[in-house]
Amino acid sequence: MLTVDDPTSPAGSADVIRIKLDIAYDGRDFSGWAPQPKPGLRTVAGVLAETLGRVLRLPEPPTLTVAGRTDAGVHARGQVAHVDLPADAWAEASRQRGRALPLAAEIDELASRRLLRRLGGALPPDIRVRGLGRAPEGFDARFSALWRRYSYRVCDTAATADPLHRHDTLWHLKPLDLDAMNTAAARLTGEHDFAAFCRRREGATTIRALRWLDWHRDPDGIAVARVIADAFCHNMVRSLVGALLPVGEGARPVSWPAALLAAGVRDPAVRVAPPHPLCLEEVRYPPDADLASRADQARRIRVLGGPPA
Amino acid sequence: MLTVDDPTSPAGSADVIRIKLDIAYDGRDFSGWAPQPKPGLRTVAGVLAETLGRVLRLPEPPTLTVAGRTDAGVHARGQVAHVDLPADAWAEASRQRGRALPLAAEIDELASRRLLRRLGGALPPDIRVRGLGRAPEGFDARFSALWRRYSYRVCDTAATADPLHRHDTLWHLKPLDLDAMNTAAARLTGEHDFAAFCRRREGATTIRALRWLDWHRDPDGIAVARVIADAFCHNMVRSLVGALLPVGEGARPVSWPAALLAAGVRDPAVRVAPPHPLCLEEVRYPPDADLASRADQARRIRVLGGPPA
Repeated sequence: MLTVDDPTSPAGSADVIRIKLDIAYDGRDFSGWAPQPKPGLRTVAGVLAETLGRVLRLPEPPTLTVAGRTDAGVHARGQVAHVDLPADAWAEASRQRGRALPLAAEIDELASRRLLRRLGGALPPDIRVRGLGRAPEGFDARFSALWRRYSYRVCDTAATADPLHRHDTLWHLKPLDLDAMNTAAARLTGEHDFAAFCRRREGATTIRALRWLDWHRDPDGIAVARVIADAFCHNMVRSLVGALLPVGEGARPVSWPAALLAAGVRDPAVRVAPPHPLCLEEVRYPPDADLASRADQARRIRVLGGPPA
Repeated sequence: MLTVDDPTSPAGSADVIRIKLDIAYDGRDFSGWAPQPKPGLRTVAGVLAETLGRVLRLPEPPTLTVAGRTDAGVHARGQVAHVDLPADAWAEASRQRGRALPLAAEIDELASRRLLRRLGGALPPDIRVRGLGRAPEGFDARFSALWRRYSYRVCDTAATADPLHRHDTLWHLKPLDLDAMNTAAARLTGEHDFAAFCRRREGATTIRALRWLDWHRDPDGIAVARVIADAFCHNMVRSLVGALLPVGEGARPVSWPAALLAAGVRDPAVRVAPPHPLCLEEVRYPPDADLASRADQARRIRVLGGPPA
């Protein structure tokens, strides 16, 4: 049902409307974004597509294309997806019950508003669609994206423990030295082969451009990592966090994560940090005029071996 | 097991040590702070006292005195309680397993640190003790308090909905005009008889000093009420919020809450807002030198009819 979008997709054709969706979810009760080989597992894409299909009375759930395919247990506040809908279903969504269709010029605005409200009522409370509307020309949620930003939350002292955040925060028993972690993190940014921090997949590159990686304390005293990359490979953020935590607690030297990176192979000493403190916060796109060229460029990189997702 | 503390309590006696506890909890799975008439209900005080008794090997769970007796479903990040412990149990808590007791001068610091760590391991994840230590002379968690501060979180637009916060935030379908709510709220502050906003109890006054009541948007766009009073009567914050929400959505004039207050009786048109967005954020105490006199003063007010809790 969910497939990587196709460069020859009908996004520009007259009878199909591409819709951009801004999505937030609590990943706890989902087996990640994407459908799993094992049937019956609850996924974000599965629930969202099923709800869209039901609300719009489509013959079958539509196919969603997503910016960041989050793993099981990972949350999102800034997830972005697109879906291509039949133009008549989109027009129908703009209609008030029992009334005639609105003027053509009003359809986009009314359909966006009404579909958003109906999704609010129809979706389970652990998924919210925060906004939706007709996508700008050339937009592709996955391939047009410039970068993805994730956060990772760690509570390292009893004084800042907040049980209301226990499902999105790691409780770490030893206090962390964020200065040491930031010194170590600075040596990881840039374009590198992140094979040491990725689960390798056959035929896929592990070269990524890590644009930003730092730690700060939020107003509640929680240590929060900010991680930005053009794209991430599987488990990459959690592996980077897993390499930095021992530096923060003084168990490893600040040079250790960079040495792992240089070695270029997975080191069993790096523990992949748990998924529940990880959240996709933002996906950044270029100005509308550059959406299509960015997507073409990203697709070419994919053909060369590296899937940006 | 839990009783209102007694002015003749043994806090000053040599064989008892008064301990101050800073506590945070997710109120969702608790029937409030205080023990309930119906047996078998899980309460914050019950779990905390049982855990303290077990960790310290006391013959029975100790009695906790609390600053704010939160209702079922209400959270806390800044709850404060005190407990009077036998001096020998406190000294024992400072001892490392299999070692001799530390020097007397070190007992407070070591017992605080070790008991805090052991409580972290023994308490369920929906209660955290954030800090503990010997209380200053004259301290009483309930009667020494100058004021209590609560927050109430409301999400009023799909664009800011965060499923990770659905257990501590009200999802309100209509956008709120915070300026109107603040105009209405300003007319409620000061010392008044809040009978219109309280569940009346036989023989208890409903006069309270509401020091602060306003609404602001946090960085995520959530509408947050800040409510400060010397003390609150039952349901007071939730009733005040319930009177202000219709003002924010334009269903009632800004003069309505003040008119309710002046009428002095409960109006069935005021819906008590749900408990899950309410959180006790802070309890403020006077400087150590004034703790005992403040407690005496608050106890006298209670004798005159008004329980500050």
